Formats: sequence, structure tokens, C-alpha cells
Amino acid sequence: MLSALALARRIEAGELTPRAVVDVCAEAIAAHEKEVQAFVALDLVAARRSADNPKLAALPLFGLPVGVKDIFDTFDFPTEYGSPIYAGFQPRADAAAVALTRRAGGVVLGKTATTEFATMVPAATRNPHNLDHTPGGSSSGSCAAVAASMLPIAFGSQTAGSVIRPASFCGVAGFKPSYRLIPTAGVKDVAPHLDTAGVFAAGVADVAFMTAAILDRDLRVDRSPPAAPRIALTRTHLWSKASAAMQRAVERAARAAEKAGAKVVDLTLPAILEEAYAAQFVIQDHETFRSRSYEYDAHRDKLGKELRESLDAAAAITADAYDAARRTAKRARQALADLMAEHDVILTASAPGAAPKGLGSTGNPMFNRLWTLMGTPCVNVPGLSEDGLPLGIQIVGRFGRDRAALEAAAFVERAIAE
Amino acid sequence: MLSALALARRIEAGELTPRAVVDVCAEAIAAHEKEVQAFVALDLVAARRSADNPKLAALPLFGLPVGVKDIFDTFDFPTEYGSPIYAGFQPRADAAAVALTRRAGGVVLGKTATTEFATMVPAATRNPHNLDHTPGGSSSGSCAAVAASMLPIAFGSQTAGSVIRPASFCGVAGFKPSYRLIPTAGVKDVAPHLDTAGVFAAGVADVAFMTAAILDRDLRVDRSPPAAPRIALTRTHLWSKASAAMQRAVERAARAAEKAGAKVVDLTLPAILEEAYAAQFVIQDHETFRSRSYEYDAHRDKLGKELRESLDAAAAITADAYDAARRTAKRARQALADLMAEHDVILTASAPGAAPKGLGSTGNPMFNRLWTLMGTPCVNVPGLSEDGLPLGIQIVGRFGRDRAALEAAAFVERAIAE
Repeated sequence: MLSALALARRIEAGELTPRAVVDVCAEAIAAHEKEVQAFVALDLVAARRSADNPKLAALPLFGLPVGVKDIFDTFDFPTEYGSPIYAGFQPRADAAAVALTRRAGGVVLGKTATTEFATMVPAATRNPHNLDHTPGGSSSGSCAAVAASMLPIAFGSQTAGSVIRPASFCGVAGFKPSYRLIPTAGVKDVAPHLDTAGVFAAGVADVAFMTAAILDRDLRVDRSPPAAPRIALTRTHLWSKASAAMQRAVERAARAAEKAGAKVVDLTLPAILEEAYAAQFVIQDHETFRSRSYEYDAHRDKLGKELRESLDAAAAITADAYDAARRTAKRARQALADLMAEHDVILTASAPGAAPKGLGSTGNPMFNRLWTLMGTPCVNVPGLSEDGLPLGIQIVGRFGRDRAALEAAAFVERAIAE
Repeated sequence: MLSALALARRIEAGELTPRAVVDVCAEAIAAHEKEVQAFVALDLVAARRSADNPKLAALPLFGLPVGVKDIFDTFDFPTEYGSPIYAGFQPRADAAAVALTRRAGGVVLGKTATTEFATMVPAATRNPHNLDHTPGGSSSGSCAAVAASMLPIAFGSQTAGSVIRPASFCGVAGFKPSYRLIPTAGVKDVAPHLDTAGVFAAGVADVAFMTAAILDRDLRVDRSPPAAPRIALTRTHLWSKASAAMQRAVERAARAAEKAGAKVVDLTLPAILEEAYAAQFVIQDHETFRSRSYEYDAHRDKLGKELRESLDAAAAITADAYDAARRTAKRARQALADLMAEHDVILTASAPGAAPKGLGSTGNPMFNRLWTLMGTPCVNVPGLSEDGLPLGIQIVGRFGRDRAALEAAAFVERAIAE
């Protein structure tokens, strides 16, 4: 994979030009894109032209190429939200995250494939580790492009598990920051109380570098060795649904972290967090039904069957049920904050197992729903695998303590590698 | 003014057709629009055609005409966000609130004038009560159109004070529900942690009727006489900035409510709420700077001078200052929730006074910023005035208790009228 940080350092040192990095991406795209199908729009000519801008050298991203999930608006690429309803739609503006990326000196190489409106109907994208397996979703193209070395950095978004799960399946670092840390203006709404923009890159230090650059925040973790975190190993009530290989991977990560100096304790979550897990479905479905009201009413025939049926079911969720779910979420957030007073991060699985075989489903976000609802920062730590398919470890931080979450994730990443 | 409820009842009784209501609006538009300038787009032909749909009679809004602030996307009208950058821009979809309105049987008559990106640079709209005075903003066209009887219902949005203040200046009912109760998908972001969609109509029962219809929630307050609320009369630390006339109006409303059976007690807010007031500026400016990053970087020359300078200043707000403001807001929300355990609503001023003279400013949102940040439902109660200019009374409810806020507002509205 292409480490964004390593590339940035070489550009800064004058060993590489931004244009040469575009060429490296172009080569990988020529080699893999036909099979992986990560992109829905791509403009290498424009990217090379942008990369030649001499001003980039002074900017935090040094002209690095960036991929953008096709639910983020872009003024220069069509944005179709994974739906034929928006075929050829050309937004007038960039989403805020895209504009901030260009401001920081990133070069938008293209738009990456998303499931339909970032929900469940898969894109054509395949897992670079095994083309017969799903790359995960909904940010399918972004994580597959990074995994296939076609891009050093790409944007995704998570409403249930659309950053952490595909990152796990594709073996890349994925960062879902605290709720709304990355602005979502100009990103197509799915469920507004959950939707969170995130980032994919080769390693933990790379996602931290990108997020720090676009937000102008102290989030980098590459400048000194990460401190040993206090880790709560949390199996959650879904542990029995995780594959034996995933269970082993999480235990192995815990032991590696412990050996490297981390304090690791077992933590059982109180019942309110299991209730919050159930509440996430209600909140997501109720809000998605409203976000998609135009498409549902005016273009029902152009919705995928699975999404249409899911919206049909969501129509029956009452306002009372939704309000109760919101109250449960609020109580759970407070309970989690209290619980985390003595821990820096939670360590758990990123997904139930390796990427499932077949392209008909993007896999199950069960290990992500709770954390998205809690609004806590989540990092997928790559590095483990079984039978050639990656198994991601998830680090969950405290709300608003994104740097600590990234640092702990970098610590675990290093511990696993040793 | 045109009461939405009264019109709906007459349509339901067969005394009036939806088309006849469009004609009533068209007459008022012919008489007043040239001077008031509430609309930026209007299609009476299409509205009449929509109103002739026989299915409307069975729907909650009975074909009533609705105006939509021009920061809400509409698939059939250009949407320009009050900015020349978006001249002629035609969205592909309706904002969720607009789609829900059509689903409920509302007929979108046109788009109403907004200040530039719903911030400070005024639209051309004038106050129907006195054309030399501002109608308030940023939802200028929506409140002026309702005040001039050109529409029974219109959408607005509030980030600082853009629903309650113009409602006060124009003498109409304005409802800013609890944060995000009305979905904001497809509404141009300003400051996402503050942006709240709201509604204007002739009276409190009318805004409740509209909101109940589009959200399918039990919010109507016209079916039985409103219960006597427990009111906390709250002058806030800004009381000395309110005009003598506004101070008298608030006191008068309190005495009228008391006489009608409400329990009224004085409530002094703790210091944390004054801190939260100051935090609102930081949060709004920091978030607006990010939401407008594309326009700021790519179309700086097409931004109004006032907005450009405000964004220049906002660029200097650090992430630390923003995070501290968010923490202050969180503490203040908890303090307010605790404080309100013994009160149903707060009664305070909707604005510092009547609509200021001149069209160069839309007036000061100082009496609204805190409540927007707290996410609490707010209702402007019309009915009082001085020298021909309206003075609005503000009812602030508890978060998520929108029906109680509307019922208390209806109670005060009735008490004032008696």
C-alpha cells in the first residue's frame, strides 16, 4: 500500500514530485482497476495538471492524491450517490470535506464507488485480497482503492459500519472520528444523527496525518512513539457472532498490546449499551426514511429492491419509538462516558470476521452500530489476517478524544507487527 | 393573515377548494409582492395545476400553499441560497422537509427570499407592517409572505435567530422546534450543530398544525383548550438591551397568562447559560467557516463583503476554542434541563424590540442565540405591538417537549388576546 506519510516525507525532501505520485497511482489503477472496480469517476489528466501546481509543496498534504466516496459532492466530478436517480448529476459545489482537502493541498483523483445512498445495495467493487469476496460497504470503492495501492488516502462515511467494516475486510486503516468532527456539509444525508465522515489510508499514522491536515487539529501520531494506553478489552453481547478467527485476532492483539506495555483489562458493558445497540436500528431506519423521502415518493421505481423494502418497513416506525430510541442513546452515551473514566480506549472486533465470499452483500455492521450511535472515535487497525483475508481490530476511544484513540490504535498496530 | 387551520377546515367542509386558496394567495401577491419582495421564485400556474389534484382532499394539508426559504432544495424551482454563486442552480431533488410537505398534501407555491447563505447580508424583502423597516432575517421572505397574507405557511430555518426574530418583527407565529425535529437533509448547511428548520404561519395553532402534518406527530393544539402552563419568566442577562416597549410587552404577556390561570414565577439563569450564549458565537462562526469552505476558496469575489469579513475573522478560531465552546454548551444543556424540572416553559422576549428601521441589517438575534444552542423548542407568540410594529413574545420549551411548548404558546397567545 501507499503510505500517505511516507509519500509526503519524500515529496517534502524533494525525492518525489506530486505528479510522480499521481503516476504511481495511475500505474496501480491500470493494473487493478478493471478487476477491483473502485472508481465511478476518474480524471488522471486533471489530477496531473493539479499536481503540477507549485504551491502544493507548501501545503500540509503536499499534493497527495485523494479519493472521494461518491456521496460527497464535488464541483468537478458528477456525484451519483450510488443511485441511477442521480445519473450524471453535477453538483455546483464541493462538500466541505473536499474543499478542505483541496485547501490543504490534496488532489482529488476521482470518485469512489458507494452502495446505493450509502446503504445496503452493493456497488460493483471487489476485494483486492480476493476478488470473489466483498470489500465491505458502503464506502466500498474508497477502501478497495487504498488496499490496491491505487490511492494513498480516501474519504468514506459511516452510518452503521461503513468505514470500520470495509477497512477491516480490505486490511487498511480506517478512522471514523467523533461524530461530526469532519464536516458533513455537502455529503448526502442518510441518518443525520449517525452519519460521520471518515478516512481510509495504509496505516493508523496515515489516517491521523490526513485528518490533522484537513481539520488543522493536533491529531498526528507519527512524531513520537505512541504512549502505552489503558485498554478495556470488550467482547460485547455479540461476541458469539464473531468467527473463531476474529476472536483469536482480538485476543492476540490484546496480548501483543499487553506485552508492549499497555494495561489491558476485561470490560463487560452494562445492559443499557445492549439496549442502545437495538436503538441504533430504529434511529437509522426512521431517519433514512425521512432523508430519502424525495426519492421514495418521486423515483420509487429506480430504488433497489432491498432499499425500497427497507424503507417500506421503516415507514411503520412511530415517532414514539424513535423518540424512545433517542432517549436510550442519550442514557447509553452517559453510561459509556462514566464507564470509560478509567480506560483510554476499548479494544474489540471491527467486524464479525473476514470479508464474506460473494458480492451480493457487503457484510454485517453489527460490531460498528453501537459505536456509531455513541459518537465515539473508532479506528480499524490492520495487520492481522487468516487464509489471506484481513481481520481488523477496532479501537474505540472516548468522545472528543480522537487523538488518544489514534495514538492507542498506533500503539496496538505497532504491537501486532512486532 | 391566512390561518392555515381555518383554510384547512373550510376545504375539509367543502366550502373552499385548494385552487381557490391559491387564488386568494395570488390576489395578495398581486397586491403586495411588488413592495414586499418576499419571493425569489413563484409559479402560480404550476400551483393551480397541483391544487387541482383530487387526491389532496384526503391528505393532512388539504392542498394548502406553502412557501419555502431558498436554502431548502426543490426539484422544481431553482435554489440560489441567497448568493450569486448559485444563480440559476437547479437541484435534482427536494429537501426532505419539502418532500414531506408534498407527501402531506402541501402545494409549493414558490421560494422565499433568504439573506446570503442564511447569514447576515439582507435580501430585498421589506416588512409588510412598514416598508421602511426590516422584516428580520435570515428567513426574511417566508415571514413577510405570511405577514402579508400571501401564504398561509412557510418554511424558515434558524442558526442564531432566523425564525423567532423575523416572526417577532413581522407579527406572525414562528416555530423553531427542538434541534433537528424537522429533517434538514437538502437544506444548505450553515452551522450544523445549530441549524434547525422551522415554520411560519398566522397563529400558534397553525404552526402546530403544519408541523404535526409533515412529521406525523401529535403536535396539534387546536383540538382542546390549552392547559395552564407553569411559566418561568426569564429576563436573561440581556434584559437591559431590550427596548422599554419590549420589556412592557413581556411583562404584559406574563400578567395576562397569570390572569388566565398560568403559574408565573421569576427565574434567573445560572452563569453557565451566559457562558453558553458567548459560546454560540464561537460554534456558529467556526462551523460556518467550514460549511462555506468551497465558496470562500473558489468564489471569494462573489461573497458579500460582510460575510467575507466574518469568515476571515472566523478563520482565526482555533479547534481548542471551538471544543471548549462545545463543552460549555453541553454543560449548559444539562443545567437548563435540571432547572426546567419545575417549569413547563420559559417566557422571554423574541427580539430586542420592534423591527429596526432600514433595510441594511436584519436586526439582532441576541434573544435567540442561547436557545438555538440549547436545542430547545421556541415559539414566537404574536399579538402585541407598539406604534404599528409587532412585538413578539418567546416561549421556550424543554428539549423534545415540543407539544408542551406549543400548547403553552397557544395559552399565552389566547391570554394576550383576551
